[in-house]
Amino acid sequence: MAKLYFYYSAMNAGKSSTLLQSAYNYKERGMDTLMFVAALDDRYETGKITSRIGLQANAVIFDGHFDFFEYTANALKENPNIACIFVDDAHFLCKHHVEQLSRITVFLKRPVLAYGLRSDFRGELFPATQYLLAWAEELVEIKTICHCGRKATMNMRIDEQGRPVKSGEQIEVGGNERYISVCREHFLLGDSGGGFRFAEIEDKDREGNQKT
Amino acid sequence: MAKLYFYYSAMNAGKSSTLLQSAYNYKERGMDTLMFVAALDDRYETGKITSRIGLQANAVIFDGHFDFFEYTANALKENPNIACIFVDDAHFLCKHHVEQLSRITVFLKRPVLAYGLRSDFRGELFPATQYLLAWAEELVEIKTICHCGRKATMNMRIDEQGRPVKSGEQIEVGGNERYISVCREHFLLGDSGGGFRFAEIEDKDREGNQKT
Amino acid sequence: MAKLYFYYSAMNAGKSSTLLQSAYNYKERGMDTLMFVAALDDRYETGKITSRIGLQANAVIFDGHFDFFEYTANALKENPNIACIFVDDAHFLCKHHVEQLSRITVFLKRPVLAYGLRSDFRGELFPATQYLLAWAEELVEIKTICHCGRKATMNMRIDEQGRPVKSGEQIEVGGNERYISVCREHFLLGDSGGGFRFAEIEDKDREGNQKT
Amino acid sequence: MAKLYFYYSAMNAGKSSTLLQSAYNYKERGMDTLMFVAALDDRYETGKITSRIGLQANAVIFDGHFDFFEYTANALKENPNIACIFVDDAHFLCKHHVEQLSRITVFLKRPVLAYGLRSDFRGELFPATQYLLAWAEELVEIKTICHCGRKATMNMRIDEQGRPVKSGEQIEVGGNERYISVCREHFLLGDSGGGFRFAEIEDKDREGNQKT
Repeated sequence: MAKLYFYYSAMNAGKSSTLLQSAYNYKERGMDTLMFVAALDDRYETGKITSRIGLQANAVIFDGHFDFFEYTANALKENPNIACIFVDDAHFLCKHHVEQLSRITVFLKRPVLAYGLRSDFRGELFPATQYLLAWAEELVEIKTICHCGRKATMNMRIDEQGRPVKSGEQIEVGGNERYISVCREHFLLGDSGGGFRFAEIEDKDREGNQKT
Repeated sequence: MAKLYFYYSAMNAGKSSTLLQSAYNYKERGMDTLMFVAALDDRYETGKITSRIGLQANAVIFDGHFDFFEYTANALKENPNIACIFVDDAHFLCKHHVEQLSRITVFLKRPVLAYGLRSDFRGELFPATQYLLAWAEELVEIKTICHCGRKATMNMRIDEQGRPVKSGEQIEVGGNERYISVCREHFLLGDSGGGFRFAEIEDKDREGNQKT
Repeated sequence: MAKLYFYYSAMNAGKSSTLLQSAYNYKERGMDTLMFVAALDDRYETGKITSRIGLQANAVIFDGHFDFFEYTANALKENPNIACIFVDDAHFLCKHHVEQLSRITVFLKRPVLAYGLRSDFRGELFPATQYLLAWAEELVEIKTICHCGRKATMNMRIDEQGRPVKSGEQIEVGGNERYISVCREHFLLGDSGGGFRFAEIEDKDREGNQKT
Repeated sequence: MAKLYFYYSAMNAGKSSTLLQSAYNYKERGMDTLMFVAALDDRYETGKITSRIGLQANAVIFDGHFDFFEYTANALKENPNIACIFVDDAHFLCKHHVEQLSRITVFLKRPVLAYGLRSDFRGELFPATQYLLAWAEELVEIKTICHCGRKATMNMRIDEQGRPVKSGEQIEVGGNERYISVCREHFLLGDSGGGFRFAEIEDKDREGNQKT
């Protein structure tokens, strides 16, 4: 059996960067990888894993009907050099997806590294996150910070005035909502730190981090 | 804010020993602690945290109606020297208990260390475990081993013949069921390693570990 | 290759308890272990691993001339069921001992779990600790607390009046010195928190933790 | 006191990427940082932290005479919004540098995150690594892989024919030496996996990871 890893974090911690760096390490040592991303994630381009800091790579899109086990078994027949399976947006998986990933590690003997959010804006686990937290051999936190300087572990949804939103659908695609990662104290107190908005600095800073 | 810790493991890893050692460390440095244990846990004596290896200490019993926040707030009024809160059997907590523990860390500013199982014999999270895994600042694994030598992360329920049991109530108090901690592969395969029974060696070994 | 683990901590964190619990877990699953302890450690009885909280087990004594690889290779010939090697007092090992332990994991394919102090009372690593920190696949901290409530990571040597001692031999066997584990800030400031003395409470509390 | 963190790894694991992502997280939340890099590291441009995957940022250069404490104290007088100190190439620090970083966390109350190699090509710690491993509150491994698929923890120096080199200076600036990160077994056996060369793929792949 290979291991199932769950790299969890709050929003905007650098999950995709960490995934892309790990996949790069495999490639650098002459090993191939499979990378998967949610169809749902249309922040950037479809079929791309994209990090805020400016990295990007092609990935296979999954939706609810996708079968990770079948896809990986077939891919290994053509290319046994595939050494590791990477899944971005793992909080968008379904329970049966996590079962497929579990079987990949047992029967296809390849490690699976899944990267996703721990909890939603109400503090509830996502369905897939439940099973990743229950079954993964390694739970690894990717850290980020609250506006107060402490580690951020929770995700606050805020409206256009920067006020915390407490109810609504778990996933709102294409809405105007924004998320801020905060520590548990500021989550409980509903303190968004002034409704600081990421979107504004994101575009100009991303360029500053690319080599020219 | 103080931190919420969740020390998770499979069955029979040494959760209670680890708890008792940590509480002892506090006492040794002149600081007091509060210790809680489930009313449900009647393996040994009621109101005792007991480790298989032979340690024991008194603890306050909690059931579904118990209010951790109120109890701790009152205890701190009498004794501000209480420096840390310990909860054994944390998988037997309810969601509102975990909310109370969360508020203890924020408003009473004492760290809470909760020790419990990660998943049940069906591979499902316990209700309390969901919220501890979602909210704790630190997720710490207490390791134990499968009959194959790998890390055990899952709990298999076996019947009197040592065969795995797949259905039934999440908690069966007073039944004949036995649990074996196994790795995820042997959990999937239903391989209990020969139905090895802990209860038989437990009593004679426990004595061997005590100083005389 | 099996893995080399270094469980490190400050003084009085519960290293021996953790070791004894892990060895107990192996025994409970029907696997044998080897346990080693320094000849130098005469706090309790020679040839015993003893925890402050009240646990104890027999162990093979090592000194500078002891060969861990040869001993383990011979033991495995007689008993291939030995599944794990435990070393207490690992800060008392020599460099060649750590090389032997490293070769055990590679050529005899058994995991080695070494438990020891990270640094001495001057903040310097022990010779063996250097190589355990350099080579172990897994560095695991066993936590304890400073008199201020923060994690203790350093060891302060104090004299009979509770004042910090800054110079002297790395290991003083049979002296009157006492050690207090403190956080790095209180180590730098030389603040022993009132020269709190462990020895006094140790004996009476140890009994309180044993089952009768 | 703020904490001292040591992020350690073998060569080519992604230390600089991880550093740049963490610094980016601070900036995104409106907090400033200080970043330091060794004068010695002339792989890319002087005064730049550069990751193999294609990220880059300006940094203050340190050499043996540099005083981290004085520099940071002065910087904080001008800009109290500096929330975190990042040090790349931390294995090139001197002991007195690590003492300065330690005092920054205690007296200037800012966390210090140091990123560096654990051991050199002979398996020996670097002088600075000794003190970071001894004093840091948090030791965090950045993982990478050996040619066999296991975690790589050691650094092998190889000559132009891909053969392992066992002796020489700890740091060879501008030489032809190449390094390969391997697991401890392949380090002991001197197995470089065919003398795989990173430099060749590095340049073309780096571009492939940049967004255009």
